[in-house]
Amino acid sequence: MSSGPRDTRVLEAPAASLDSWNEGTARAGIVDFVTRVTKEGGPDFVPAPDRIAVFDNDGTLWAEQPAYFQLLFALDRVKALAPQHPEWKDEEPYRLALTGDLGALAAAGEHAIVRLMATAHSGMTTEEFAQIVKEWLHTGRHPQTGRPYTDMTYRPMLELLDYLRAHGFRTFIVSGGGVEFMRAFAESAYGIPPEQVVGSQGKLRFERRDGKPVLVKQPEVQYIDDGPGKPASIQTILGRRPIAAFGNSDGDHAMLQWTMAGSGPRLALLVHHTDAEREWAYDRQSRVGRLDKALDEAHESGWTVVDMRKDWKRIFRFE
Amino acid sequence: MSSGPRDTRVLEAPAASLDSWNEGTARAGIVDFVTRVTKEGGPDFVPAPDRIAVFDNDGTLWAEQPAYFQLLFALDRVKALAPQHPEWKDEEPYRLALTGDLGALAAAGEHAIVRLMATAHSGMTTEEFAQIVKEWLHTGRHPQTGRPYTDMTYRPMLELLDYLRAHGFRTFIVSGGGVEFMRAFAESAYGIPPEQVVGSQGKLRFERRDGKPVLVKQPEVQYIDDGPGKPASIQTILGRRPIAAFGNSDGDHAMLQWTMAGSGPRLALLVHHTDAEREWAYDRQSRVGRLDKALDEAHESGWTVVDMRKDWKRIFRFE
Repeated sequence: MSSGPRDTRVLEAPAASLDSWNEGTARAGIVDFVTRVTKEGGPDFVPAPDRIAVFDNDGTLWAEQPAYFQLLFALDRVKALAPQHPEWKDEEPYRLALTGDLGALAAAGEHAIVRLMATAHSGMTTEEFAQIVKEWLHTGRHPQTGRPYTDMTYRPMLELLDYLRAHGFRTFIVSGGGVEFMRAFAESAYGIPPEQVVGSQGKLRFERRDGKPVLVKQPEVQYIDDGPGKPASIQTILGRRPIAAFGNSDGDHAMLQWTMAGSGPRLALLVHHTDAEREWAYDRQSRVGRLDKALDEAHESGWTVVDMRKDWKRIFRFE
Repeated sequence: MSSGPRDTRVLEAPAASLDSWNEGTARAGIVDFVTRVTKEGGPDFVPAPDRIAVFDNDGTLWAEQPAYFQLLFALDRVKALAPQHPEWKDEEPYRLALTGDLGALAAAGEHAIVRLMATAHSGMTTEEFAQIVKEWLHTGRHPQTGRPYTDMTYRPMLELLDYLRAHGFRTFIVSGGGVEFMRAFAESAYGIPPEQVVGSQGKLRFERRDGKPVLVKQPEVQYIDDGPGKPASIQTILGRRPIAAFGNSDGDHAMLQWTMAGSGPRLALLVHHTDAEREWAYDRQSRVGRLDKALDEAHESGWTVVDMRKDWKRIFRFE
């Protein structure tokens, strides 16, 4: 059972601030929206149970370069398992994975990556998997910054999560990442409890091990929570339409459209990666986190676009 | 957006009571469990965020005879659509559905029923479907009692839901019923908000209708939330193991096993349909809601078994 911080913790602190945000249209848009929906008796007031905010994870709450961190986890996992699998030295895609060459892996194609992900994410019980991820979060280091991965969460977004919760919002992750992978850190890193994490799902098999009922992770995919899969999972799992949605790529486009199509006040926000110096700069041509059509619609429809270079005083949590 | 009663409403009322429960081992088992897990500083204390209680719906929170109410909804829906489908008069399984002969339908087999369910549950947007179900709840009548279906919720279980919530539990439905079907009444009938309803899922397609993004219900099944599918969906959607589970059939067996396999205090409860006079009496041989293996394990493992005839002063909400 979990006992970490959770949504209620903000009640113990003074109202959350947005200290890492520079003054500008992005910050002003957020504050204006929150002020309007929380003003009792005002025309845009939204009752607390309907103050649902959904956040993509990769590229929105933490970094996603040079590859999704969950893929880096899978590669570390394959490396850790390699001594028990001497045959991997000569077997693709394991041989390639053990070289750690991300470019070659990308070139090897989706099938190779799916196979590596399945290897790293199946065969164990859900409890064993959570433990494996937690250990990796403790020992794993980002290949370029040398930092633990949870240090590479975005400080302005952490402030935003707190700020929304301080104003009666419930904050959900809705991400293409694996739901059980994200839950291993969502509560300690973001204050988001397990039941507010929605993600891609592997199949689970209910079976008995050592006389005890367990759920064993299977290599087959149950659901991909990306693109049009995001509004569908929001509907299926939450059953409420969010009033605010935060993303950074075309994979979030449908989620933002779905959020904005509801009645009443709405906020759609895109994090635009524009800071090659402090983070990475990428959008329309990127292999990871491509932002193209959603950026066009953001400009056309007046969605809020965060320019990381200009809008954020600090980027990472560790700064 | 919804604005009905929800979990917090109990805070406005005095502590909920179990007035419709006779004194006996079932009632005593519930009270003892709740007292132990809520006693701060006690050896069995469970922090509020982990006080998760999961309830099956059909046969546990409302009746399920002579057939699952969702199937009766589908038959009513086929009847309502029939004028637009004159060909159904000669086409199975529609012809059979229009006769309303439940025995013949059961004999026609699962394929016929799946097809009727798909007809009644697909083609419309999620919002249109919610509206259709709400209208049916208003106009539909149970074939034997002549009552609206939500009158056939069990009063002792409504009291139990309130009682648990008054003691800091969050109450979830985890049912084989369709998640969007159940959400149409879960909040008003049970005080359970949409995000605490887990059920079987149809596929949803994100598309544009009249220039607006919508989710359209597809005939294909995405997930069956029954049997071993229940612990799997609890893990995938809640990400916490419940400490209390309530069911009435072998379809709930895995959910109760999974709940009881956790550490610390646990409660598993089966509603045994033993009252042929006030409700229905059925168990090991029943086509609907068969209770056989789970009843054996309940006796062997000391799970709580509710004898409806002896334990409940009143059965239905309308009494």
